[in-house]
Amino acid sequence: MKQLNTEIISVGTELLLGHITNTDARDISEMLSEIGINVKYHTVVGDNLERLRECVEIAKERADILITTGGLGPTCDDLTKQVLAEAFGLKLVQNEDELRGLYDYIHNSSHYTQNNLSQALLPEGSTVFHNKWGTAPGCAFRAEGKTVLMFPGPPVECVPMFREYGIPCLRALSDEVIVSHSVRIFGIGESAVDDLFADEMNAMVNPTMAPYAKECDCLLQITAKAKSEAEAESMIRPVMEHVRERLGERVYGTDVECLEEALLPLLLEKHLTFATAESCTGGEIAKRFTDIPGASAAFVGGAVVYTNEAKARILGLDPEMIEEKGAVSIEVAKALAENVRRVTGADIGIGVTGLAGPDGDGVHEVGTVFVSMAVEGKTWVRALHLGAKRTRSFIRRMSGNHAFDMMRRWLSGLEVEIVF
Amino acid sequence: MKQLNTEIISVGTELLLGHITNTDARDISEMLSEIGINVKYHTVVGDNLERLRECVEIAKERADILITTGGLGPTCDDLTKQVLAEAFGLKLVQNEDELRGLYDYIHNSSHYTQNNLSQALLPEGSTVFHNKWGTAPGCAFRAEGKTVLMFPGPPVECVPMFREYGIPCLRALSDEVIVSHSVRIFGIGESAVDDLFADEMNAMVNPTMAPYAKECDCLLQITAKAKSEAEAESMIRPVMEHVRERLGERVYGTDVECLEEALLPLLLEKHLTFATAESCTGGEIAKRFTDIPGASAAFVGGAVVYTNEAKARILGLDPEMIEEKGAVSIEVAKALAENVRRVTGADIGIGVTGLAGPDGDGVHEVGTVFVSMAVEGKTWVRALHLGAKRTRSFIRRMSGNHAFDMMRRWLSGLEVEIVF
Repeated sequence: MKQLNTEIISVGTELLLGHITNTDARDISEMLSEIGINVKYHTVVGDNLERLRECVEIAKERADILITTGGLGPTCDDLTKQVLAEAFGLKLVQNEDELRGLYDYIHNSSHYTQNNLSQALLPEGSTVFHNKWGTAPGCAFRAEGKTVLMFPGPPVECVPMFREYGIPCLRALSDEVIVSHSVRIFGIGESAVDDLFADEMNAMVNPTMAPYAKECDCLLQITAKAKSEAEAESMIRPVMEHVRERLGERVYGTDVECLEEALLPLLLEKHLTFATAESCTGGEIAKRFTDIPGASAAFVGGAVVYTNEAKARILGLDPEMIEEKGAVSIEVAKALAENVRRVTGADIGIGVTGLAGPDGDGVHEVGTVFVSMAVEGKTWVRALHLGAKRTRSFIRRMSGNHAFDMMRRWLSGLEVEIVF
Repeated sequence: MKQLNTEIISVGTELLLGHITNTDARDISEMLSEIGINVKYHTVVGDNLERLRECVEIAKERADILITTGGLGPTCDDLTKQVLAEAFGLKLVQNEDELRGLYDYIHNSSHYTQNNLSQALLPEGSTVFHNKWGTAPGCAFRAEGKTVLMFPGPPVECVPMFREYGIPCLRALSDEVIVSHSVRIFGIGESAVDDLFADEMNAMVNPTMAPYAKECDCLLQITAKAKSEAEAESMIRPVMEHVRERLGERVYGTDVECLEEALLPLLLEKHLTFATAESCTGGEIAKRFTDIPGASAAFVGGAVVYTNEAKARILGLDPEMIEEKGAVSIEVAKALAENVRRVTGADIGIGVTGLAGPDGDGVHEVGTVFVSMAVEGKTWVRALHLGAKRTRSFIRRMSGNHAFDMMRRWLSGLEVEIVF
């Protein structure tokens, strides 16, 4: 496959004012890297005719695939289709299907404006991407050897539309199939993973392998190109097995986004539930787990016990013990997990106490966190020393990762560590 | 002040792979818009000498201020200083202070590499931005009528460095002072705010006013230019008063980021605490509030009661009542707030129960949420119908906003609504 350079142009003054983040460009880039298409540039430009024109001219020079996000809506700010059509000498024509859909929408909506109908204008000869998530359709066309795809800006429309229409459209540009899998790793950093596999990775051509760091874990991406999906998969398989063997229990999943996503099926499979008792993480572990649709089948609930009084009143911890050992202590962590398990009746109890900063307690350094797991009469505690230079957000997230990792390991029959 | 067009160039292949989001460009843009500097372009380019050179050439053509993020580290990928110096015909010279600092760092660090010392190389004549948050220094220089500023990529370094060094450096480019304040609004959408003030906003020149939508609330930004800060402030004051008067109690704060940030000082001032009983929000309200350093003084803790059993076991709700009324009901919301207040001893109890989706319960539509507040023998419940088309994340966040808003209103002596 010829290397097809891609540029993503995001159109919207709100992006330049910093009112919104350009997550569309990130999400599209991530999806494209999975099918082996290289994104070479992201450009953000405001709702301004002249500047958008210039950006499109630059992109035509340096890219084979132009993807735009934003500027497809009904207001007069929305210039993308007009500029792209013009840049390739195409007229805008009314799309009858989309027009009918918009009439229906307007008829049923209190937000009627004639402007809405302009959304049915599309460059002549384009493939229409019907928008099931909003009103403005996207589209694609080929002209002057370039492929142009346009999507609306709101991420709740852009991302599913790109997945549904953009990916198949770009896959079709090549006879080759590109397949990519990610191996997710916790408990060893990106640079250590890099060291482990550096020689092999440098020698690999197809499939390729590359490590990437995420905020609190990392991954290895393995990508193969072949004539068929089955062939690509069979090229990846031995590499994947080798990687899994070498990294062992530090691999928590394949093609998942986070530890909690890998944990949910393990809990469901064994019909087990857990409950949380969170001090310094303040509800973040519960929130993260319940971000996953369907989490309720494995998560009973829990307590956020920020103060010592709450630890005593909600979970029945002994105030004298807290006083004696300190709120940030192995003993309190242990009692949190055990008590929340007992109070809620969950199979597994998780406890977290520590210092997320910015202030310390005069005893421990900021970044000291005790994460505990109580299950079937046994309680484990991990003592983390994440370092005082870390942000509050990092310390909280990493503590959550350890809680999920402890459950994952126990459910997979692996050593959890330190038993009290 | 002459309009100074700004381009932010972010350098890093990881951005183009979608492994990280370009929050630096957003945060810098937001800080610049507050001092009235217009960002016209964001560009993202990989760690590639030739492509970075081309992007810098384009930026030199179209912008007066070039800000780079990323590519200042010690690895051979890090090309930014080299390319920018070259583009303006400057040599890289060793900065002695930074070199000494790096020697000390390396001496005390286990991650020694000779490469680290290359970080002390800076374009001749630049102002050095010492990096207190990491190792790679930033810098600024003026050449060929352009102002160039360079910052490291990691947001925990880039953002505080831009605030400390970048903002004063760019402010100094003008005799005029630009002051901007934001009025944060909850309970009325951006388009309604726009309608209310459209005529006035169109007629305004200095100060200016513009509405912006955030995910679950909105804001009006008021910006004035003057010879002094005091003068700019005095120009903004009457506009701000007018806006506050017109919007009334829907204004929750000035120059704050979110409802919880506005709520914390209200609670501290009255020495009051609250506790949360969360069902569908799954700990998100506790998590958001405890994201704020110092939150522990006003937040006792709470319960995440995802299942009916947890509602009964942790907070003592009557299982028969839950059965009869349904988990998503006004009665359960009321009991959650009242019980968590009693169990924890907090002054205010907050309860949330509802359907965040994607699945419904066969009775209510997804997006139905009851948010309750119990305080001093009185309980309020807000019934939200957020719409089944909303995402799980929106429904959860908006529910949290209502909880914070109810407390804010009660603490400010405003009507909270429906009393049961």
